[in-house]
Amino acid sequence: MTRTMIGIAELEAGLIEDLVDRADNLEQKLSSGLRRLGGLEGTLITTAFFEPSTRTRLSFETAGRWLGAEVLTFNPATSSTVKGESLEDTARTLASIGTDLFVVRHTDDSAPSRFADASDRPVISGGAGITTHPTQTLADLLTIRRYFGRIEGLRIGIVGDVAHSRVAAGLISALPRLGALLHLIGPPGLLPGPADAATLARTHELDPSLPELDVVYLLRVQVERGTDTGYRSEEEYAADYGMTMARVGSLPAGAVVMHPGPMIRGVEISDEVADHPRCLATRQVAMGVPARMAAMLWCLGGETR
Amino acid sequence: MTRTMIGIAELEAGLIEDLVDRADNLEQKLSSGLRRLGGLEGTLITTAFFEPSTRTRLSFETAGRWLGAEVLTFNPATSSTVKGESLEDTARTLASIGTDLFVVRHTDDSAPSRFADASDRPVISGGAGITTHPTQTLADLLTIRRYFGRIEGLRIGIVGDVAHSRVAAGLISALPRLGALLHLIGPPGLLPGPADAATLARTHELDPSLPELDVVYLLRVQVERGTDTGYRSEEEYAADYGMTMARVGSLPAGAVVMHPGPMIRGVEISDEVADHPRCLATRQVAMGVPARMAAMLWCLGGETR
Amino acid sequence: MTRTMIGIAELEAGLIEDLVDRADNLEQKLSSGLRRLGGLEGTLITTAFFEPSTRTRLSFETAGRWLGAEVLTFNPATSSTVKGESLEDTARTLASIGTDLFVVRHTDDSAPSRFADASDRPVISGGAGITTHPTQTLADLLTIRRYFGRIEGLRIGIVGDVAHSRVAAGLISALPRLGALLHLIGPPGLLPGPADAATLARTHELDPSLPELDVVYLLRVQVERGTDTGYRSEEEYAADYGMTMARVGSLPAGAVVMHPGPMIRGVEISDEVADHPRCLATRQVAMGVPARMAAMLWCLGGETR
Repeated sequence: MTRTMIGIAELEAGLIEDLVDRADNLEQKLSSGLRRLGGLEGTLITTAFFEPSTRTRLSFETAGRWLGAEVLTFNPATSSTVKGESLEDTARTLASIGTDLFVVRHTDDSAPSRFADASDRPVISGGAGITTHPTQTLADLLTIRRYFGRIEGLRIGIVGDVAHSRVAAGLISALPRLGALLHLIGPPGLLPGPADAATLARTHELDPSLPELDVVYLLRVQVERGTDTGYRSEEEYAADYGMTMARVGSLPAGAVVMHPGPMIRGVEISDEVADHPRCLATRQVAMGVPARMAAMLWCLGGETR
Repeated sequence: MTRTMIGIAELEAGLIEDLVDRADNLEQKLSSGLRRLGGLEGTLITTAFFEPSTRTRLSFETAGRWLGAEVLTFNPATSSTVKGESLEDTARTLASIGTDLFVVRHTDDSAPSRFADASDRPVISGGAGITTHPTQTLADLLTIRRYFGRIEGLRIGIVGDVAHSRVAAGLISALPRLGALLHLIGPPGLLPGPADAATLARTHELDPSLPELDVVYLLRVQVERGTDTGYRSEEEYAADYGMTMARVGSLPAGAVVMHPGPMIRGVEISDEVADHPRCLATRQVAMGVPARMAAMLWCLGGETR
Repeated sequence: MTRTMIGIAELEAGLIEDLVDRADNLEQKLSSGLRRLGGLEGTLITTAFFEPSTRTRLSFETAGRWLGAEVLTFNPATSSTVKGESLEDTARTLASIGTDLFVVRHTDDSAPSRFADASDRPVISGGAGITTHPTQTLADLLTIRRYFGRIEGLRIGIVGDVAHSRVAAGLISALPRLGALLHLIGPPGLLPGPADAATLARTHELDPSLPELDVVYLLRVQVERGTDTGYRSEEEYAADYGMTMARVGSLPAGAVVMHPGPMIRGVEISDEVADHPRCLATRQVAMGVPARMAAMLWCLGGETR
């Protein structure tokens, strides 16, 4: 049984919940000290990150190794793509070497599905363009559910360049289907267009929203992807949208701050907030490994011990 | 029992056939789903690719892992060679760390044997200069033998920059000894010199040869190695030597096209031919893993389960 | 039981001797052909080399693999550090992925302890700044003890840029405590300051010292770290401090030359000396793997089979 996991939008709500359940179970094993859980022995997983990201790649690699798979790292910077090989031929070549499952990261949203089509192998998007990053969503859902015991009814604000964030895209697809209420908060031009307006609260002002949020999910200002925030400086952006302890003070009791990392301290998040117990950033990273294990097992039909 | 595999020319015809037999047997196991075949557990194989090539390196790495070996990747770009260390001292250092077998790729033809001499360890050439790439030859021989059931008597044309191709050098050494008939086809200046003329057909024109070939083996125009084809553009080169569906139509029934990859579509091969069932390029890649396993086992005297 | 190994100076003499004993025992197993010794199965070791060094990284990676650990390579050049992430957040992220032990190399002396503080995980310094490189010291001590059967009473000269060498710093910390007599030999400005003068012989001239040394430990002229030797050329430096066969002839019978590598032949060491049986450079590399295994086992409280 092999499947492909490109975008969270393609997965039904029941399946998303099953995957979060499975990740939850795997995380309990990992945190109890069980590591080499097996389930994918003799399987070859190849990571193909055309956009560099060591932290995400190492999270996938760790997930694969605890499942007993062999994990290859395809590095496009030193490969035939430099010699002019097409993405499709690269996919076919790596499949011919024996790859059973690909993890593809790319600036192009369509790269993971192009990889799947050309290789005839399952593909997990490890982050593509501005639309897909499903295992980040699964890790975030697990983090939220662990903290609050539920997702339904939670009020979750996503803050920053929502329009160009694949992390936001995944949350926007999954959270409303699981019963959460979303607030999209960011500068003009950085919120998704009116097509989404009916189901989501949208505002340009952070401060009035704070007392009504259970989760403030901060996005990184991604200068390397050409984000134009409309601000002349990081300081001015931080004044309007940066999470500070003063703003944490406006949140309801029990509310938390989330961030997918890497955090740029002093811009979207202050030092104090980043290091505060109510910031769940490192928990999100920790949930990433079992989330990716769940995704790999689902794609390849494996079961751990 | 340890041996070194630098060039196919050093191997006797009987041994070449044994290695292809062994690779054939390993490939049957792999394609039946057996992967972790073992045979080299506790062995340390270090790939040292001074000329970047991810696809070939990953093929070797996969081969080593299915044999149960630990595979280290030595990356000269971030290593002591930058600090001025000699090739020989690098070889000795990696041997002292515990390397049992090296796979060496280098622009210099002599690098693999220099590595073997300095380290006193077996070395497989993973492609060196314009002369050696023995595991590519083994993979190609296995691909041909699987498709035709034999090598003897086949008429095989090698097309392109034959003079500067290590892939061609291996085929030219092995195929005549195994009974195949070779045609070398390419522009003036890109065919080997008159010393080889006695045993090989040589011509500058592709079209008249096509009806007489069972295999058209296309070489990549390797601009990064400074190939001067004598043509002013890739289009003009393609007009004379590029494999198109029209040219496939001139081949005898049952003839096939081969290419060691990476393919530059639109130059030496058209899109249609590259994707045609009679193009065996991806099969060649698939045969590369068992061919490298056979080479590793031969070098170190191991046996799989 | 988890500990951190940043600098050899923090380790008591008895512990240093225990670690050398343990490395000695591990080396005997490795050289007898036993490789997969286990002891750290299910453990995740992450190397984080902010200063490139393939040879040291591969030595640590080999050590970890023979102990059965999974070894991840964090490459800062393609990671979030490029996106502005702090060292501390990187450490926390890699810990959250599941890292049990870090190996950190950095130009900044304080990086390993900053990594340990932020991640709350044990850290081995893989070479930091000009002060710490403890596993190199352990490997050197084992090399010396194997050759001479003892360390106490040996006269050991360290030659070159002693002031800016972390290799020298480790030897200067450990050797006097184990009973060896140290001579620091180098150009003015490249010897440690007067604070160390009481316990160590210091001189700017190599030749008069040679007849009184059992070990000549040569340091590399580290141009990439901005060493200013005060000499106008490598030739002039070599004339005063380069180890030649003539200078080997001035040594007592049984004296040896050591070098931590990579050797720059023709500068601090001549070709003839580098290849001479009395140069122990490759033995030092070979002792590095069991020394690193001993350090890893000590940090994580593991035992091999």
